[in-house]
Amino acid sequence: MKAEIVAVGDEILTGQTTDSNSAFIASELNTLGVDVTGIHVISDSAAAITEALDDTVGRLDLVIITGGLGPTRDDITKKSLADYFGATMVTNSEVLENIRNLLAKRGVGLTANNRDQAKVPDNCKVLMNRMGTAPGMWFRERGSIVISLPGVPYEMRHIVKEHVIPGLKPLLPSGGIFHRYVITYGLPEAQLAERLNPFCQTLPEELSIAYLPSYGTIRLRFTGRRGAEALADEKIRELYRIIPDIIVGEGDLTIEKRVAELLSERQMTLSVAESCTGGAISSLLVSIPGCSNYFKGSVVAYSNSLKTDILGVPESTIEIRGAVSEECVMVMAEGVKKVTGSDYSIATTGIAGPDGGTESKPAGTVWIAVSTPKNTITEEHSFAWDREVNITRSSIAALNLLRLELERDVE
Amino acid sequence: MKAEIVAVGDEILTGQTTDSNSAFIASELNTLGVDVTGIHVISDSAAAITEALDDTVGRLDLVIITGGLGPTRDDITKKSLADYFGATMVTNSEVLENIRNLLAKRGVGLTANNRDQAKVPDNCKVLMNRMGTAPGMWFRERGSIVISLPGVPYEMRHIVKEHVIPGLKPLLPSGGIFHRYVITYGLPEAQLAERLNPFCQTLPEELSIAYLPSYGTIRLRFTGRRGAEALADEKIRELYRIIPDIIVGEGDLTIEKRVAELLSERQMTLSVAESCTGGAISSLLVSIPGCSNYFKGSVVAYSNSLKTDILGVPESTIEIRGAVSEECVMVMAEGVKKVTGSDYSIATTGIAGPDGGTESKPAGTVWIAVSTPKNTITEEHSFAWDREVNITRSSIAALNLLRLELERDVE
Repeated sequence: MKAEIVAVGDEILTGQTTDSNSAFIASELNTLGVDVTGIHVISDSAAAITEALDDTVGRLDLVIITGGLGPTRDDITKKSLADYFGATMVTNSEVLENIRNLLAKRGVGLTANNRDQAKVPDNCKVLMNRMGTAPGMWFRERGSIVISLPGVPYEMRHIVKEHVIPGLKPLLPSGGIFHRYVITYGLPEAQLAERLNPFCQTLPEELSIAYLPSYGTIRLRFTGRRGAEALADEKIRELYRIIPDIIVGEGDLTIEKRVAELLSERQMTLSVAESCTGGAISSLLVSIPGCSNYFKGSVVAYSNSLKTDILGVPESTIEIRGAVSEECVMVMAEGVKKVTGSDYSIATTGIAGPDGGTESKPAGTVWIAVSTPKNTITEEHSFAWDREVNITRSSIAALNLLRLELERDVE
Repeated sequence: MKAEIVAVGDEILTGQTTDSNSAFIASELNTLGVDVTGIHVISDSAAAITEALDDTVGRLDLVIITGGLGPTRDDITKKSLADYFGATMVTNSEVLENIRNLLAKRGVGLTANNRDQAKVPDNCKVLMNRMGTAPGMWFRERGSIVISLPGVPYEMRHIVKEHVIPGLKPLLPSGGIFHRYVITYGLPEAQLAERLNPFCQTLPEELSIAYLPSYGTIRLRFTGRRGAEALADEKIRELYRIIPDIIVGEGDLTIEKRVAELLSERQMTLSVAESCTGGAISSLLVSIPGCSNYFKGSVVAYSNSLKTDILGVPESTIEIRGAVSEECVMVMAEGVKKVTGSDYSIATTGIAGPDGGTESKPAGTVWIAVSTPKNTITEEHSFAWDREVNITRSSIAALNLLRLELERDVE
């Protein structure tokens, strides 16, 4: 089954919004074995929607359209679809009831715009939206399935999981493609590629490999046709012999998830002292449900007074060595462990930039520390990107340093 | 000038990566007055790249291609472009020198893959990439400008700012479109649309309006042809009379930026006590350069023991009222103000979900508090989305509560 995604929205074309919906849908479709051959972002106009339907309906097995279903008059996808498919608009009582209930919960009444949202083309299957007021729609036309979904991310995700995936499953052959992921950290792309060059040369025809870099992590994606799974497993086992030092794990693992696994297994706890990363490490940890089992909390010691007052960094250390120093980050890591009573801790201090750098400590200079039940280790990094990238890379580097210590302690 | 963006990458089609590059480029082009009429994500294959070039070159004034320029063998954009434009590949000594310097800084040597990156088609203008090893390229073909950029976000952004924008500026007429943004918070889209219905009816033909919702914030975008700027200003002044209660500000303002402005103006300081938001509020604050002027730091009191030990929440409060309670969030806000010596503080405690809810306190129940030099106020929220959305909406709601207090204190 071949599919394309059409995202309707001037807000994407003007760069005001990133199209994260298409990534979610593409990921879900790929997992099902549906081949996504293109994603198109188009204008919120009847002409652009009609043109996109002309280009995709009949050519593809599946077309998923997102956006343009909101209650305001700048949203026109539904009308364009109804016109294109020659449908009449009818009020759907179940949808109307759902809208009424949702608004009642928010303590507001039904508007004329909301009533319009309960009108749907008479030749579509309605996909109920329990998270919002705009329903999804499922059409069949010239051999294509055409599905229209709201653009609000959590509403769209809800309808995909509840209705789209279960609806598509019975229509799919058992074939299709599969992916396997191996997550690495610590080697730049070209260097990793060089180390893997002989390995890639021996890759059988049924498998292909791709490098997906992100903030120091590189995911290796193996793609194959169903039936070649055992072959992929064998090649991945081989990979563990070639680059054992940089493999984090497989599948949808991330460094923070691996840290979570290791802490849970050992029933150990973690705390964080963040200066330049400003809460980013804590946010990554808290993004994982159930983190309260091992995550005690953090001190975001952005000002020097907090480093001194809560974490116990001596004023003299900051005066003589500076807040961005090995001495400071060490005491921060040990201090937060003491204050929270955790078994492990992470600390960061640095200059995220763009300003605040000096000749000896340019923007991007970051010290990280990990304190274990046995000792405290430190690392200095020189990142030279923008503020957001420096913060993210520092956070991942610090979590990885902890991961390596935990993996070692387990052995 | 009309433009389309082509993002090359199987990692986007498989949903492993969100296409944030296109949003950045679209935003930059729109600011210049270039009309972005489409964004296309295509496969990392020679056939797909050629097809995309066939579809866009000659039809548009400008085509920007991102991705597929990395050092590994799964990246094939450069070769496809050279073939399409009938070019020969030649080593560019300046690019080679740049690659050598970059790698030396990272302490690694040149690989054969890196040497290949220094080869460029002989009929393009090279756009130097000081942030990475893959250069950008600028072609002219059949009336179109075709620009190829690497897919690594900070490298791409760097080349756009340094070379693409300055290169395009002299080619643009002084006309074009403009946008004005008004940021609102606190009213759902349909309710806002109803209140603005009469206003929208009187909008002159030269202006159009769109609603861009995101986590409780709705940005109103006014679009007009150059020349209608005064008209837009007048309508925006009118808007301040219709919805004064929910306007946060204009332009690229966010709630956290407005909080930063207000604190800086008043030379006041802020600290945060986060439980369910787990560092997300701190991260939003620290994303703003120069935040050390007003942001003291945070305590991410994820475990109850931290709420007690650092913030001074009595154990009896947690036992009797629970950690998710008005009493607890109040003491958290006052406690973090005391510990950090800040003038203002924010606190959050709640159940981010998906698990951990009870009948009386379902997942999504969140208490927020703001403590000012004069008093402490609280708010209860019932969010019912997924974990990530609950965390983000709680963070924005808490920052907005502080903003309202600060605006009031200024008056």
